[in-house]
Amino acid sequence: MLDVTQTRIPEGVIDLGVGHPSLELLPLEELRQAAQHRLSQGDPSILQYGAELGDARFRADLARFLGPYYGFAVEPETLLVTAGVSQALDLICTTFTRPGQVVLVEEPTYFLSLGIFQDHRLQVVPIPTDGQGLDVEALEAALRQHQVALLYTIPTFQNPTGTTLSQERRERLVELSQQHGFLIVADEVYQLLSYREAPPPSLARYLDTGSVLSLGSFSKILAPGLRLGWIQAAPRLLQRLAQNGVVASGGGLNPFTSSIVRSALELGWQERHLQSLRHTYRDRLEAMLEALSQNGLQPRYRPEGGYFVWLELDPAINSQALLERALQTGVRFQPGHRFSSQGRFTHALRLCFAYYEPPDLAEGVRRLAATLQEYPAEAAGV
Amino acid sequence: MLDVTQTRIPEGVIDLGVGHPSLELLPLEELRQAAQHRLSQGDPSILQYGAELGDARFRADLARFLGPYYGFAVEPETLLVTAGVSQALDLICTTFTRPGQVVLVEEPTYFLSLGIFQDHRLQVVPIPTDGQGLDVEALEAALRQHQVALLYTIPTFQNPTGTTLSQERRERLVELSQQHGFLIVADEVYQLLSYREAPPPSLARYLDTGSVLSLGSFSKILAPGLRLGWIQAAPRLLQRLAQNGVVASGGGLNPFTSSIVRSALELGWQERHLQSLRHTYRDRLEAMLEALSQNGLQPRYRPEGGYFVWLELDPAINSQALLERALQTGVRFQPGHRFSSQGRFTHALRLCFAYYEPPDLAEGVRRLAATLQEYPAEAAGV
Repeated sequence: MLDVTQTRIPEGVIDLGVGHPSLELLPLEELRQAAQHRLSQGDPSILQYGAELGDARFRADLARFLGPYYGFAVEPETLLVTAGVSQALDLICTTFTRPGQVVLVEEPTYFLSLGIFQDHRLQVVPIPTDGQGLDVEALEAALRQHQVALLYTIPTFQNPTGTTLSQERRERLVELSQQHGFLIVADEVYQLLSYREAPPPSLARYLDTGSVLSLGSFSKILAPGLRLGWIQAAPRLLQRLAQNGVVASGGGLNPFTSSIVRSALELGWQERHLQSLRHTYRDRLEAMLEALSQNGLQPRYRPEGGYFVWLELDPAINSQALLERALQTGVRFQPGHRFSSQGRFTHALRLCFAYYEPPDLAEGVRRLAATLQEYPAEAAGV
Repeated sequence: MLDVTQTRIPEGVIDLGVGHPSLELLPLEELRQAAQHRLSQGDPSILQYGAELGDARFRADLARFLGPYYGFAVEPETLLVTAGVSQALDLICTTFTRPGQVVLVEEPTYFLSLGIFQDHRLQVVPIPTDGQGLDVEALEAALRQHQVALLYTIPTFQNPTGTTLSQERRERLVELSQQHGFLIVADEVYQLLSYREAPPPSLARYLDTGSVLSLGSFSKILAPGLRLGWIQAAPRLLQRLAQNGVVASGGGLNPFTSSIVRSALELGWQERHLQSLRHTYRDRLEAMLEALSQNGLQPRYRPEGGYFVWLELDPAINSQALLERALQTGVRFQPGHRFSSQGRFTHALRLCFAYYEPPDLAEGVRRLAATLQEYPAEAAGV
């Protein structure tokens, strides 16, 4: 089989480990029409080396789109267009860190961010989390011990726990960043994917402090393959990012794709697609929670949005060992230790509800529960 | 005016400094049709997180396209798809260098690459060049003095000099990389843009040594705004690049755009467009050489392809000071010192013939000559 996508799921397996939208949710026809709309307007500038911060017309449309969701006016001059959030994170590390410096991360955190910090030879220090997100008291203690370059957080519908940082903690976090002079890099790719109550506003609300960089992306609200995202930050910080060698050399990071997505924004398709996704994912979240409950499994936290549910099992269970058994039952998940910079959470696991329809989610959870029954703590700990 | 593209040229100025294709050469209609072709085939996988090395179907089509130009079979498994050459260079530095290591560059070299090496805190050591490209004897001397991580070269139709590395020197260069254990990063974006005699084959010919990484791009043969390029290297090196945090996190670096360009390859439009570009650029190169000759200006070397002509003026002339005079006459160029990691070539300048049609090129050169006459060596040296 030709390698076409990142994830290859074996036939018959329900892979609750993938953190992707499912293929049938990807708006191929809308993007065909958006490409048609944009490429038939006789404007070849979209094929030229782009403006360093990104095409100003796209940034204006993006700002208009985000404002109502964020609950405050988004200014185009606070946006820099990127080739996705991972690339944005890489750019931020190159610009604002030096090898050996300390980066704080949540414990647990998005496992693939750890690879980026490692590439930049940063020292990763974990901060514990609970049902309200990052533990800001533990953060204060860490700040007394370390000189910190930046803190990486997923404040809303966190990956992997699904929790959301409370408003009170957001304010304290921003205060601390001011007092201790570190940057907050907020990965807010799930901010718009709320299925119950609206989350607190994006951390971009605090851009004026000059210590916040908020990362967003079309990966979760339109299509990952576009590799299109943005950094929202004070213009002073954006100017420093624009001086990066890659940006200076090639100009804007994704002019062609952003011009097509500009049509999706202008024509209202992004808005409509997001509303549709919210309904679909709400049903999938409900289905997964229902299936867990029916199988006697209790998620650690109850997510209000995003993609993920986090389970913490009997501490004697090793979820990596469990995964090998689960594969034989035809189900996969992400073992918890991957989300820890310290190899902790060996008894935990992450389930994604975005990729499958409710019947498959129910079947996947049933298989997981069967695996757990067949291999209880003592066996799965082997 | 909204910032849309990287370069803003003032009204009435002929900017021979821009290293871009001109807007009317960008194949908007072909890309509209390619997008239409690809996005109407009911395959949403092109919108999903991509395979780490890039979509295998695109890599196969790219390999088929390159083979006849390169003069040897190109294997898809030697290709990794990138978001342009600058991004590729950044990825290579992250993967294969450590801060403080030595990178060798040509003197003069592509000025914007220097920013990328600086971002990676590398020590840049220049190697002199002449009409046959990199001086391999000087290279040998440098290798006795330095432990070298990689050498960055633009072997064919070099930026800024327009020269091409001779076949004999290519072989010696590869031998030296084997003996001294450094990587050759060959920026070959002009390889296909030959207007007279065909250049020696791409350095990718020596991939089997495991010391060559060849960079290519659609920026010069289709459109810069696509931000689509590739790294050609031994599969062992590609596997290391694919483990980079950004690649591991987001999957392939440009799945959506590469799927559209796949249609441009399949339908033969890339081939046709390249042939048309070669004719156009041949005419522009001739026009520029003719204009220089008519105005008593002698290029340092006679380019056989690419985008650029390099002038070395009276050593007493400072081309940065000259540029300020030239602007008043309505012409711009790139002053030579920008292409030197040492601030040398203050008496040189780079002219690009890709952006303008022959009459504008002739007028630009006429204005440049007028500036030189009005401000001879002693004045322009101020």
